[in-house]
Amino acid sequence: MSLGRGRAPAARSPGAGGGSREPGGVTRSGGALATGRASAGGGLLFIVATPIGNLGDVTYRAIETLRSVPLIAAEDTRLSRRLLARYEITTHLISYHAQSGPGRELELLAHLRSGQDLALVTDAGTPLVSDPGAQLAAAWAGEGGAVVPIPGASAVLAALVASGLPAARWTFEGFLPRSGRERRERLARIAADERACVIYEAPSRVPATLTDLATRAGPERRAAVCRELTKLHEEVVRGGLGELARRGAAGELTLRGEFAIVVAAVASGSAVDRGATAAAPTPATLAEARAEVARIVAEGTRRAEAVRRVAASTGLDRRALYRSSTADS
Amino acid sequence: MSLGRGRAPAARSPGAGGGSREPGGVTRSGGALATGRASAGGGLLFIVATPIGNLGDVTYRAIETLRSVPLIAAEDTRLSRRLLARYEITTHLISYHAQSGPGRELELLAHLRSGQDLALVTDAGTPLVSDPGAQLAAAWAGEGGAVVPIPGASAVLAALVASGLPAARWTFEGFLPRSGRERRERLARIAADERACVIYEAPSRVPATLTDLATRAGPERRAAVCRELTKLHEEVVRGGLGELARRGAAGELTLRGEFAIVVAAVASGSAVDRGATAAAPTPATLAEARAEVARIVAEGTRRAEAVRRVAASTGLDRRALYRSSTADS
Repeated sequence: MSLGRGRAPAARSPGAGGGSREPGGVTRSGGALATGRASAGGGLLFIVATPIGNLGDVTYRAIETLRSVPLIAAEDTRLSRRLLARYEITTHLISYHAQSGPGRELELLAHLRSGQDLALVTDAGTPLVSDPGAQLAAAWAGEGGAVVPIPGASAVLAALVASGLPAARWTFEGFLPRSGRERRERLARIAADERACVIYEAPSRVPATLTDLATRAGPERRAAVCRELTKLHEEVVRGGLGELARRGAAGELTLRGEFAIVVAAVASGSAVDRGATAAAPTPATLAEARAEVARIVAEGTRRAEAVRRVAASTGLDRRALYRSSTADS
Repeated sequence: MSLGRGRAPAARSPGAGGGSREPGGVTRSGGALATGRASAGGGLLFIVATPIGNLGDVTYRAIETLRSVPLIAAEDTRLSRRLLARYEITTHLISYHAQSGPGRELELLAHLRSGQDLALVTDAGTPLVSDPGAQLAAAWAGEGGAVVPIPGASAVLAALVASGLPAARWTFEGFLPRSGRERRERLARIAADERACVIYEAPSRVPATLTDLATRAGPERRAAVCRELTKLHEEVVRGGLGELARRGAAGELTLRGEFAIVVAAVASGSAVDRGATAAAPTPATLAEARAEVARIVAEGTRRAEAVRRVAASTGLDRRALYRSSTADS
């Protein structure tokens, strides 16, 4: 599965060196404006991916877009200035982040409503709606405005590629909770998932998380610890989770910089990884899962459906859970 | 959550215009070679993302890499030639895809073992190990060789961005099975998932899949149908799954080109979607979110952190939720 879909690159002028009014290659009369509401003819909101480390990891279209819009809203203007300086871009920068307050968002929406384009960038990588301040995209889309993605670097995909692990399908979990029931549930789900999983982790917590993953998914499960991707000290350590956890505990991993951990999918065609802890849930886990099934059934859901949901979220074997939970009633 | 992690772009020369021997910014003495095995000092295998449609969606470092390596292995040499011609790159191309046979893979491994670098590209987007022929990366990594990701465009991330939906965490499902138990199970899992989900779909099957998704996840669940992203006819139709399914069934959606469907996460802490939009939360949603914050705080998490998590998973405004939840206490 390629992560790009375009078999026929668009015939129109690409970003590099082109002089089109609308760098997104999107026309106002059609394209991204079709949002199910009539457009008021407002400006285009470009969501522009920026480098995750190496300043060369930015696209020609991103640079052309940043150069041609009248205004760039940046999560951290100091960081964005470095990128702009590197490419000799003099576009006006305005800060826009989680602490900006509602006034700034209204100001940017007014800019768009007046028909002027705007580019949005975060510190690094691809801005999403969950990024600080990026709810602007949801608001503008909600008004029927055009939101145009300018794709580029992403640490999640870089980690999947660097892992060398099969990844036809995958999940991105962000940072796991540091402790408690939600951490245990998410670890169990990752262990049982038939999709590869990408996790972010703080340096000091990498060894503990590798140990927890090895316990849940088994020592043989393949994984990769990616550090400082695309940067000077880029490093990828691959191996079984057991070996990686041992090396982490023994202080053999360099714990500096930014980390992404990639965990291989559970073996296809089974809900359990041979030899993994997921294959042998503790009674406590099963009891918790049964209680969850009972709760969902009490809310009016069919038992089979409740079992399926809980099995999916806990990684327990569905048939075993079904048998166990019907024995309850 | 930013999809890039790099707060401090590397100081070394970026790709654009640089003349380094190793365009990946990776040194042989360290960097990506740390794979738990001694490296034989082989060549670097660059996994290079290419455009998903618009030829401007390629990074400066990708172009520099493709220009400086002695050989490029391409899934479809005819398509890759267009990109190379656009950027006046004359590097030798060799075809490498699922039907290449084992001989070609051995040939490429021999090239790498001899100390020469190699760039791998697919038709479009970011090559992964599941792509046709890309198992080369796994084989080379398995020998302790260096696999260097050159990040760039991806249709999955472009779809998440274009959707305007909250996506702190997400899953990528590829194409769903066309029928049967596995399709039903995967639809059910998507409906119950607390992560946003990206699906690829063939044009003729978009209406049926929207209908199935609406049945499973409810008509109010937010979604986006993305067509021809980054291309001339780029189009994003957003709405509730019920409305999208109705429009699909009524022939109101243009069914040409390449599609990605993004389905919003189920509302956090509940198995049902209240149908709230991120821009205008209903009181019911806010009340639920407040209750979820209170629950997490009761478990010992700081309120700011609890608010951050719940805001990320529900799409509610973080400041509004914080104010609302402190008013509770």
